[in-house]
Amino acid sequence: MSSVDLKWKVLFSVSVIVNFTCIVLVIIQSRTRLSWTREAAIEAENVASISCSGHGRAYLDGLVLREDGTPICECNACFTGPDCSLFKPNCAVDVDSGNPMFLEPFWKQNAGSSGVMVAGWHRMGYEFEDGSLISKQLKSVIHKLHDTVGNANTSNKYILFGAGSTQLLNAAVYALSHHTPYSSPTKVVASAPYYPVYKSQTELLDSKKYKFSGDTSSWKNKTRSTSTTTNFIEFVTCPNNPDGHLNKAVLQGKFARHVYDLAYYWPHYTAIPSPMDEDLMLFTLSKLTGHAGSRFGWAIVKDKDVYDRMVEYIDLNTYGVPRETQLRALKLLNVVLQGDRREMFRFAHTIMKTRWEKLAEILSTSKRFSIEQLPSQHCAFSKQVRPPSPAFAWLKCEAEEDEECHNVLRKSDIIGRKGAAFGVENRYVRLSVVNSRDDFDLLLQRLQDLVSKHRSIVDGVMSL
Amino acid sequence: MSSVDLKWKVLFSVSVIVNFTCIVLVIIQSRTRLSWTREAAIEAENVASISCSGHGRAYLDGLVLREDGTPICECNACFTGPDCSLFKPNCAVDVDSGNPMFLEPFWKQNAGSSGVMVAGWHRMGYEFEDGSLISKQLKSVIHKLHDTVGNANTSNKYILFGAGSTQLLNAAVYALSHHTPYSSPTKVVASAPYYPVYKSQTELLDSKKYKFSGDTSSWKNKTRSTSTTTNFIEFVTCPNNPDGHLNKAVLQGKFARHVYDLAYYWPHYTAIPSPMDEDLMLFTLSKLTGHAGSRFGWAIVKDKDVYDRMVEYIDLNTYGVPRETQLRALKLLNVVLQGDRREMFRFAHTIMKTRWEKLAEILSTSKRFSIEQLPSQHCAFSKQVRPPSPAFAWLKCEAEEDEECHNVLRKSDIIGRKGAAFGVENRYVRLSVVNSRDDFDLLLQRLQDLVSKHRSIVDGVMSL
Repeated sequence: MSSVDLKWKVLFSVSVIVNFTCIVLVIIQSRTRLSWTREAAIEAENVASISCSGHGRAYLDGLVLREDGTPICECNACFTGPDCSLFKPNCAVDVDSGNPMFLEPFWKQNAGSSGVMVAGWHRMGYEFEDGSLISKQLKSVIHKLHDTVGNANTSNKYILFGAGSTQLLNAAVYALSHHTPYSSPTKVVASAPYYPVYKSQTELLDSKKYKFSGDTSSWKNKTRSTSTTTNFIEFVTCPNNPDGHLNKAVLQGKFARHVYDLAYYWPHYTAIPSPMDEDLMLFTLSKLTGHAGSRFGWAIVKDKDVYDRMVEYIDLNTYGVPRETQLRALKLLNVVLQGDRREMFRFAHTIMKTRWEKLAEILSTSKRFSIEQLPSQHCAFSKQVRPPSPAFAWLKCEAEEDEECHNVLRKSDIIGRKGAAFGVENRYVRLSVVNSRDDFDLLLQRLQDLVSKHRSIVDGVMSL
Repeated sequence: MSSVDLKWKVLFSVSVIVNFTCIVLVIIQSRTRLSWTREAAIEAENVASISCSGHGRAYLDGLVLREDGTPICECNACFTGPDCSLFKPNCAVDVDSGNPMFLEPFWKQNAGSSGVMVAGWHRMGYEFEDGSLISKQLKSVIHKLHDTVGNANTSNKYILFGAGSTQLLNAAVYALSHHTPYSSPTKVVASAPYYPVYKSQTELLDSKKYKFSGDTSSWKNKTRSTSTTTNFIEFVTCPNNPDGHLNKAVLQGKFARHVYDLAYYWPHYTAIPSPMDEDLMLFTLSKLTGHAGSRFGWAIVKDKDVYDRMVEYIDLNTYGVPRETQLRALKLLNVVLQGDRREMFRFAHTIMKTRWEKLAEILSTSKRFSIEQLPSQHCAFSKQVRPPSPAFAWLKCEAEEDEECHNVLRKSDIIGRKGAAFGVENRYVRLSVVNSRDDFDLLLQRLQDLVSKHRSIVDGVMSL
């Protein structure tokens, strides 16, 4: 054989090997090629790849203004421009609502495991296979979640779902005020400062069954008296919204029933000393995973009759929680419970802890504003002694003239929620600490400016 | 050059061409390879590929009993076994609920365009960018939908969303009974036979604002009298559930307000003579696309004050409809409006028409059972004269002794909903015509047996 001949032979052999490898690759890729899910997956990836400068995001159902059919960037407050890169200098930072966007980066980091493909034919029917409106799989993940975190004892209790805890608040009031005959309506109370929805929702339909009756403290002695026959429902919020206190029930006796609103009883916001073991406990996805828009909450109920009446309420009010919401909640909670089951909690707590350290540092130099000092406690979940890192800063204006504290802040471009909304004086303001990083950074900066300005005025007066 | 040399040269050239093609293919495939959506897409396709013999389906959030982690088949009623291939011979067919599964095959056929990938970080916040709880894109698709079908005039009207029409029914009652002072509660009425939820939902919370007051006909003269000051809210259901009549408002005068429940005012079920143009109209996805489990409905409202009060109700009741539900509804309605915008309507009407032809044929031979004859009308959407094909058969037992018609059917393994639930005598029974094909086929067979059996008894008596 000639050397030329040998050369071609070697070249051909190498080429055949490359060919073979290549063909195997093509076959493997074709086999794992997606079919009916492909269109939706590409669409979602395209939208996710739109750059909004880290100050916004584009959504699949966002407004479409561009010619190429892609949705626009939706910017964080105080940012603007087609890619959210422009800061609006005199923009007021809105920390009125507790919009839990601080958890968004966690879900972006876990995009692969937290996305869910909803088929066009997914669970079209009214009921699940067992005739209920509740996913068994989701219920069992919720049991596992509470076992893991140790914040609620769910054994031998019933679980039902609602549209956030919002819908479940009224379902609970309905269920607990169901006693015949109701000569006088059941009194619904909460300890001020309290979450405003307790009042507004209870009053909405002007029911003959129940009536919002204000602050718990005014009724404390009444329920102790043996002559009373008035029924009470007390909302117990732990940690409390707005002030972060680990509230306990105030009313006792056989005429007092309690609804434990435990929306914030997660290691992000508080040490978890021990599992709650109450007759009626409410939780919501909003403050656990940050999915406020999903409107998913659950109630853990001890008494079968109360559970049945709450189910009756949910049935007649909305006929259950959408199946796509239940599917997504299942996916998200499975991510929370994957690996060592602590990743999301570490992420959330680290952010909240850092935010509170920064906030406390700024406010520690101020005599004009104060925030309540909450004690550290041992947390059974993290096995550490932890200071609380509540979802809200409950700010008090200490100066005598600052009766309308929200106005003081508003002048410095900070929008908070005034005390009156929570049943107390306007010397108090609630500021959200759970919003996006942009919102929080801006809040810090504005507070820093406000505190410094006031300090320099005080220093000026002192030096006169 | 030797011939051997030439041979190797040619072989090498061919191989290089194959190589090149192959490498280009690998590069193209890699470029279109999905990243973070891949896991969810594969998972969804795996579940969709589980065979349930055409008598069931597996869902992503179904129970997992198998070792390989795949969910079980959920079988249609009267089918069982791991792949739903076993028929349960003495099983009662349940056509009590109007579970619109007849549309499921359409969504399986359109799997590619109707699937939606929900990212883990999709719309986590409480509100949309404009501060509302309502997707602008979805609202605009709903306008387009009604323009296409011509069943409702939406111009210069407000649109809001709710959990199915269920939640919107009570939101409407709340909004329309909002007048101060309410010395006597607003009377809520409907024309019997009426949808049972009007009564049960209105009575649920025993509001001082409104009270369910039964059949419209008893109040007809009262609202005409000039001395009345009682406010009325009349539910007008068109086509009516259960009897398919194109109901019109009965009560008139300045104290009468109307809620038009138009859940079934779609070309599947009735001719669409002209667009409705009422002050308050309710629609639901359940009976349009069959997605009852999604709990998505919308209200079209003329008056700004009424709209505002309905929004207030939805805000306080559930804080809006889940964002994943709104995203999915958008996707589904975009499929309805793709191409010539008629594909789903053709599909739905063809099934309903065929089902009614079969039903009518069986019942035409019976003297024991009758169904109401509804007139054909010109349909502006299909440009045809069409007989109605309602979602329910409103069956009447004609024999004097058959006062409890549902019991007569129950003995033949047919479960219907008795007349009393709709405010009329039990001589009537409602049977759903919109369930899965399996359910409908079984219903036909059971009705056929029942009618034949009765006819042979009658024939036997006649020949004595």
